[in-house]
Amino acid sequence: MALNKPKIVILGAGYGGLMTVTRLTKYVGPNDADITLVNKHNYHYETTWMHEASAGTLHHDRCRYQIKDVINQSRVNFVQDTVKAIKIDEKKVVLANGELQYDYLVIGLGAVPETFGIKGLKEYAFPIANINTSRLLREHIELQFATYNTEAEKRPDRLTIVVGGAGFTGIEFLGELAARVPELCKEYDVDRSLVRIICVEAAPTVLPGFDPELVDYAVHYLEENGVEFKIGTAVQECTPEGVRVGKKDEEPEQIKSQTVVWAAGVRGHPIVEEAGFENMRGRVKVNPDLRAPGHDNVFILGDSSLFMNEDTERPYPPTAQIAMQQGITVAKNLGRLIKGGELEEFKPDIKGTVASLGEHNAVGVVYGRKLKGTPASFMKKVIDNRSLFMIGGLGLTLKKGKFKFF
Amino acid sequence: MALNKPKIVILGAGYGGLMTVTRLTKYVGPNDADITLVNKHNYHYETTWMHEASAGTLHHDRCRYQIKDVINQSRVNFVQDTVKAIKIDEKKVVLANGELQYDYLVIGLGAVPETFGIKGLKEYAFPIANINTSRLLREHIELQFATYNTEAEKRPDRLTIVVGGAGFTGIEFLGELAARVPELCKEYDVDRSLVRIICVEAAPTVLPGFDPELVDYAVHYLEENGVEFKIGTAVQECTPEGVRVGKKDEEPEQIKSQTVVWAAGVRGHPIVEEAGFENMRGRVKVNPDLRAPGHDNVFILGDSSLFMNEDTERPYPPTAQIAMQQGITVAKNLGRLIKGGELEEFKPDIKGTVASLGEHNAVGVVYGRKLKGTPASFMKKVIDNRSLFMIGGLGLTLKKGKFKFF
Ligand SMILES: Cc1cc2nc3c(=O)[nH]c(=O)nc-3n(C[C@H](O)[C@H](O)[C@H](O)COP(=O)(O)OP(=O)(O)OC[C@H]3O[C@@H](n4cnc5c(N)ncnc54)[C@H](O)[C@@H]3O)c2cc1C
Ligand SMILES: Cc1cc2nc3c(=O)[nH]c(=O)nc-3n(C[C@H](O)[C@H](O)[C@H](O)COP(=O)(O)OP(=O)(O)OC[C@H]3O[C@@H](n4cnc5c(N)ncnc54)[C@H](O)[C@@H]3O)c2cc1C
Repeated sequence: MALNKPKIVILGAGYGGLMTVTRLTKYVGPNDADITLVNKHNYHYETTWMHEASAGTLHHDRCRYQIKDVINQSRVNFVQDTVKAIKIDEKKVVLANGELQYDYLVIGLGAVPETFGIKGLKEYAFPIANINTSRLLREHIELQFATYNTEAEKRPDRLTIVVGGAGFTGIEFLGELAARVPELCKEYDVDRSLVRIICVEAAPTVLPGFDPELVDYAVHYLEENGVEFKIGTAVQECTPEGVRVGKKDEEPEQIKSQTVVWAAGVRGHPIVEEAGFENMRGRVKVNPDLRAPGHDNVFILGDSSLFMNEDTERPYPPTAQIAMQQGITVAKNLGRLIKGGELEEFKPDIKGTVASLGEHNAVGVVYGRKLKGTPASFMKKVIDNRSLFMIGGLGLTLKKGKFKFF
Repeated sequence: MALNKPKIVILGAGYGGLMTVTRLTKYVGPNDADITLVNKHNYHYETTWMHEASAGTLHHDRCRYQIKDVINQSRVNFVQDTVKAIKIDEKKVVLANGELQYDYLVIGLGAVPETFGIKGLKEYAFPIANINTSRLLREHIELQFATYNTEAEKRPDRLTIVVGGAGFTGIEFLGELAARVPELCKEYDVDRSLVRIICVEAAPTVLPGFDPELVDYAVHYLEENGVEFKIGTAVQECTPEGVRVGKKDEEPEQIKSQTVVWAAGVRGHPIVEEAGFENMRGRVKVNPDLRAPGHDNVFILGDSSLFMNEDTERPYPPTAQIAMQQGITVAKNLGRLIKGGELEEFKPDIKGTVASLGEHNAVGVVYGRKLKGTPASFMKKVIDNRSLFMIGGLGLTLKKGKFKFF
């Protein structure tokens, strides 16, 4: 047994990090390297399902699983701790409760909400980010409904939910809300007509980048289910009372709301920025082999990274799909770095994108085919199950998968 | 058919009011009188189960049923409205959306929390009173737990629950909390040891009036399940930060808590007071036939009334048990008033009192026998089912009853 085995440290047990770890043991033998995975919690959560946990349509426990259940515990050290800093020069990771030395580092810390400096959003708006924020938002909405009937003077702002952003996350969350609000009305004896769901989007269209036919379908479905859209309208400020929004060159409007949700953007994890990597909004533009430029022993993947599409000369949008595929490449390349061989270039294989509209509806493109309604919703669940399958195999898929197809 | 049938109006569909209405049709024929029942909601709720709904151990929908399902709709007019005032001189009831003229009036509006003028309790403490307050308290507690892990600086006051009052309601609520807190800890990833449940009671003992052996049993059980008791200690003030409490002649103590529950007393409904009846804390000391002194056409029952125990020369404590028994007497006496006959005197038949300590434990006295543990818990459920049976018969009991005996 080698005494000085190289140390591989993987930060984050998200889609990218966990995929790396589960594949790594194929390419790196027990005598080749020590493997350590660091994650804040002892569980992995499905970031792509957080709109459901946030609305309360899917319990958060259905959206997470124990990390120890999917890693090879005899090969991988799991450290439950919070990464505080990465010291590149000292090859060291500072944790809340200790430090780790590495020879090879994989960064998969994911994203954090981006508020673009809009006043008050950080303080008063709810992000859709992880298990903690999802439980908070779900409970906050429930408390607003629960409070409504206990007050002598009725407050419509308790029943007004503003969603900032009509991109992927915003639309998926609105889809869940449209299903959840009638349930909340029943649970708390509130008339549905008193509840307002307002989506505010600065861009001139909903779901930018999506096929216009699918966009129309989604907007129509959501409007039919009580969502009001304010398109081409920017959130200018968030306060404890609500939001100020406005169209260009028009008088701003105040919307009173106790529940402002910010779903209009994410950026890379600040720790990556603070570590000194060159970055754009916290994302490091990685080399084709997924290493950070100038750092031959550091791989960065998923939402912490930025990968260019050679054809369009624009970066790929950060998705779980890409993060997982990158995990496979990182695992392979770590094997080659340690045991020799040429590093592989990452080649994304975009199978499609489907945005859910509640449990039974969706829009998207899969293998180049436009889908909407039941077929799209079916595919969405197949995709959701696929992440489980790729990381945890059939057992995990059966345990946590979505099988209520129709 | 008589053109000028007398009008009977019953206010409140609680234990007393609903019992009156369901029995009244036995003593008063369709040609004898018009019967109108007024209640704020279209449902009756089990006030005696509100500690469960408030803690979240029993869903509030399990604690209520539709009024129309238990009244004879061909005989009883049901008006869903809020009573705003009673004008005795004009024989008129003012509702939020109208007025009702009566010849005979039955008042069963129940109780409201009594804060004894303690500063801040009205504003910042949670009562355990009805479906609305229960949902609010349940959701408030959940939100505190949900928030805890989302804050960088951990706030113990989110996990500190103070219950003011170790009487019947306080102890029953503590019993539910003891069961609920471990569930909340699991749901929100909070360590049980971080949660504090503190009971503050000004009187020198827990459950005043109960047998000391049963009191010891209850205190021991609750302490074992993590409840801290501060006995002989008064709540002096409630603020948004928590409570100030103190023993006589000692330095007061500040307890930081986001959840202060006030379970230390109720008083009669203010509408009864405002109507001009002579009263003590909103309760009218009624004649033996349950009429208000000086008002031959007005019956008052349940928590709105005060009925003297001739033996002890003290009033009976207000209970659902008595309210229901009074309903039977009121129905009979209304029949006699209208059709002739001497009015009956109300004779309470106290079968016992059982305080639950969560779902599987309780203490109490039934037919003079002391009970604790499983037998007491069994009897508690029998009593809970009995109210359903008396008002709605077997059908309602099977639908809403508590049958998980062990
Ligand atoms: C509501 C929503 C819906 C989405 N839908 C889709 C979709 O349908 N399809 C799709 O492909 N993509 C979707 N995305 C995008 C997708 O979720 C992300 O691109 C993906 O999660 C990125 O994976 P990752 O491995 O980089 O990070 P993540 O999967 O987010 O994981 C990051 C991990 O790092 C951990 N971590 C963070 N900070 C620290 C720290 N300081 N110390 C220790 N551990 C830390 C976290 O706990 C987490 O486990 C969606 C996103 C959202 C929010
Ligand atoms: C947590 C708890 C546990 C208890 N446990 C027990 C127990 O184990 N055994 C026991 O015997 N007693 C118990 N009690 C006491 C018991 O609940 C009361 O004594 C009983 O509810 C009194 O019945 P009531 O008919 O007077 O009023 P309630 O049953 O309280 O009904 C009053 C009704 O009036 C309606 N109302 C109020 N205001 C208006 C308005 N302005 N307009 C129209 N309608 C209105 C309400 O909606 C309600 O339907 C408990 C009380 C609590 C809070």
